[in-house]
Amino acid sequence: MNDPVCGKDGEPVLPFELHLPARGEGARLQALHQQLRAAVLDRRLLPGATLPATRRLAAAYGLARNTVVAAYDLLVAEGYVLPRPQARAVVAELAPGRGRLRPPPRGSEPPRADAACQPIWQLPLLQRPAARELPPRSFRLGVPEHLHFPAEIWRRLSARELRRWARAPFDYPPTEGLPALRDAIARHVAFTRAVACSADDVIVTRGAQQAFDLLARLLVTPGRTRVALEEPGYPPVRAAFAAAGAVLVPIPVDDEGLCVDRLPPDVRVISVTPSHQSPTGVRLSQQRRTALLDFAQRQGAVVIEDDYDGEFRFGARPLDALQTQDRDDRVCYVGTFSKSLFPALRQGFVVAPPWLQRGLLTVKHATDAHADALAQAVLAAFIAEGHLARHVRRMLPVYAARRQALLQSLQTELADWLEPIPSEAGLHLAAAIRRPRAASRIVQAARVCAPGAQSTNDYAMAPLARPALAFGYGVMDVDTMAGALRRLRRQLEGMVTT
Amino acid sequence: MNDPVCGKDGEPVLPFELHLPARGEGARLQALHQQLRAAVLDRRLLPGATLPATRRLAAAYGLARNTVVAAYDLLVAEGYVLPRPQARAVVAELAPGRGRLRPPPRGSEPPRADAACQPIWQLPLLQRPAARELPPRSFRLGVPEHLHFPAEIWRRLSARELRRWARAPFDYPPTEGLPALRDAIARHVAFTRAVACSADDVIVTRGAQQAFDLLARLLVTPGRTRVALEEPGYPPVRAAFAAAGAVLVPIPVDDEGLCVDRLPPDVRVISVTPSHQSPTGVRLSQQRRTALLDFAQRQGAVVIEDDYDGEFRFGARPLDALQTQDRDDRVCYVGTFSKSLFPALRQGFVVAPPWLQRGLLTVKHATDAHADALAQAVLAAFIAEGHLARHVRRMLPVYAARRQALLQSLQTELADWLEPIPSEAGLHLAAAIRRPRAASRIVQAARVCAPGAQSTNDYAMAPLARPALAFGYGVMDVDTMAGALRRLRRQLEGMVTT
Repeated sequence: MNDPVCGKDGEPVLPFELHLPARGEGARLQALHQQLRAAVLDRRLLPGATLPATRRLAAAYGLARNTVVAAYDLLVAEGYVLPRPQARAVVAELAPGRGRLRPPPRGSEPPRADAACQPIWQLPLLQRPAARELPPRSFRLGVPEHLHFPAEIWRRLSARELRRWARAPFDYPPTEGLPALRDAIARHVAFTRAVACSADDVIVTRGAQQAFDLLARLLVTPGRTRVALEEPGYPPVRAAFAAAGAVLVPIPVDDEGLCVDRLPPDVRVISVTPSHQSPTGVRLSQQRRTALLDFAQRQGAVVIEDDYDGEFRFGARPLDALQTQDRDDRVCYVGTFSKSLFPALRQGFVVAPPWLQRGLLTVKHATDAHADALAQAVLAAFIAEGHLARHVRRMLPVYAARRQALLQSLQTELADWLEPIPSEAGLHLAAAIRRPRAASRIVQAARVCAPGAQSTNDYAMAPLARPALAFGYGVMDVDTMAGALRRLRRQLEGMVTT
Repeated sequence: MNDPVCGKDGEPVLPFELHLPARGEGARLQALHQQLRAAVLDRRLLPGATLPATRRLAAAYGLARNTVVAAYDLLVAEGYVLPRPQARAVVAELAPGRGRLRPPPRGSEPPRADAACQPIWQLPLLQRPAARELPPRSFRLGVPEHLHFPAEIWRRLSARELRRWARAPFDYPPTEGLPALRDAIARHVAFTRAVACSADDVIVTRGAQQAFDLLARLLVTPGRTRVALEEPGYPPVRAAFAAAGAVLVPIPVDDEGLCVDRLPPDVRVISVTPSHQSPTGVRLSQQRRTALLDFAQRQGAVVIEDDYDGEFRFGARPLDALQTQDRDDRVCYVGTFSKSLFPALRQGFVVAPPWLQRGLLTVKHATDAHADALAQAVLAAFIAEGHLARHVRRMLPVYAARRQALLQSLQTELADWLEPIPSEAGLHLAAAIRRPRAASRIVQAARVCAPGAQSTNDYAMAPLARPALAFGYGVMDVDTMAGALRRLRRQLEGMVTT
């Protein structure tokens, strides 16, 4: 490294060397400004240090004096340097804001979020739950098993789609999703869930959550639209509707699912999980399905069918999607690949009746505008070549064994405290707490011994008369499960019963 | 294929073979129901055909009669079959709805979107523009060149990140984005745009559009919050704020950018493109920047800096991001990789001051909940290993040559009609129309001869007194450009001037 450039007095002009382009005053100004600022930021120039006189610096580096003046002006405007009339400018004290040195804030009122933001975002039910620390094997709900996933196939399809993509000019992919993916999804849900649709009816979304958000924003007039939600029910759906300004109407769930006869006539949207109620696991009975569709038709309401894990079915009863039976274009069918494939994929979809499609695309366009074509192309190929169906088939016996072991333990070891709620699908199972007065202690014991298991109260807007415990088996193996439930039994046996 | 199973009378029970599991009445019911429905849907059973008597079908396949009754009941409930008291059920006429045969609709009022949906989505400015058919080489705005993209490196990083990902248990990635990507973005914008931030200040979004949407939803109280937007300005930003219910306040743009002195004191949000105004291309002057930040501080407003293509800089003037000069935590800096990398990536980000971060995450969580970890991991590696910076460096001379050729043609061949608007960055250049009275004909000529070029009126809420034509050079090569602009000149010469 060279010695710093010295002035006519033989003293260094700056404690470091500047590297300026040979020509172009504009480029030289830019370099000078940036290198001086960098020196302030990395503290080669300390707060209070005086900058060299403009004339001296200009002479030392062969710059026009105006260039140095302009660079100093910029540093002053940015707050890195304090101007001193009739004296040499000095380096300002920097504030360690945002994790990086920056110009000092002015001594003014700091902004306040509650004054600047829409108050709805302060609603408690919109706050993100605190992250829970859980062991890798736990009763956590809604996360699938990563073992057995055909990652090699995914990688191969990714490489192929990337090669294909690299040959085509860049463009903004369509709002509604890639045609190949919409087609693959339509065929898949028609085959596995008897959903009546074609590719044109499918809008690809960023997980199921974006589908709920789009529907909420489209269907809800803030402060006016009443939306019926299962109680207990899936909190993120509640959040999407609350954020859109809906009036939330909780409707109880019993062992036939949503109590359709409790729907007030003025609800305009009904959100329901017919295959596998979230979180109780019950199936909406055929009678209730018919009643719900009749209600929607009579009252002009829209039904949102959230079929989040209905692909994993263990029972023999042949009920397909609710949408299959919809003869009035009232049902929006929402699906996700977070459970059948993996959550980091962040792909879901909504099959909407034609009269709602244009509106949903208008909302989606204002929201995130375009598709992420690479991920969608890989997913489309994965589905179209049968890998999704094969993966679901491969996982079914894995989950069935875990489910069976769970059921077994609940019905034997834990039968004094818990009563499994009949359920035929999905990646979790709930069990009603037999002793409501001891419920909070039983939940507490489960929190310790069965990490990841959740009280259905966590899914409810108001405390439930008869809470249940929901156990996920997506990331729980049979052995760990047995140990955990044995420990839970011992813990419960030690409890003084009331 | 076997012959159809026959009844005791020797006649086929059905015109096709059923394949039923040997055991399990539940499974047999499911198979029977699904195969009969499939036969109705693919017209092996035509409308009006009678179904076999339940007793006969049960006997032919060794089923319990109740199983057949249950299957028929399901088909009736779904509308595929019409029940006839005291007679054999017949297949219903199917409606060709949704591109696939489904049960016939009831003869009721079809749903109407205008009755069920929030009226705001009917706003004309929220309607998606019709897709334009453009040749691959055009003056289209906002799309980068795909040649020279290091697709091989992207593929290699994808494969590596996929291998890494396949080893870890599945999980829902964090709302704010992957830590590695937030860190890579923070370093990148600190280095290239002097944005003052650390990884904690970065929220990864689905393109810049989601950042606008999150900010709009967080900051706008519907019907109340007044939002200042550049006029002309980028329509999707307008759409995001209109959709959130903002009162839009258009503020004119001149050759120093946004006319800050025209801001009414009651605007609470100001959206601005300081590096390269969209669409006129002007740079917000230093004086206006200072005035804008002072205004925001004085009035308690939030400034949204949209730096969509500011990485491509051709001038020598050393103005960095507006956020760099923000000493009051008033600026949200929004960036995107749609121009510096490619649009199908659908990754953008917002660098927000600390007091807004929690609110933005609350909105993002209600909106789409989680990150798409695979794409983010690849992008993080691509940036961290220096490939983004290298790619931008590689593209700069490519775009500079196109920009120079465009400028040259505008200043010579088209000088009688168009006057380039000074601009130093980005992937497009605008030229004011010299003859406002002939503007619509000049725009029309450009539409024919210079496909992709757009009138700045397309970006304005009301017709502009002095419209300009904006020419993108992201996907335009020098030769095609020369031919197109020659044709445009000939076309304009042939026009009768007014």
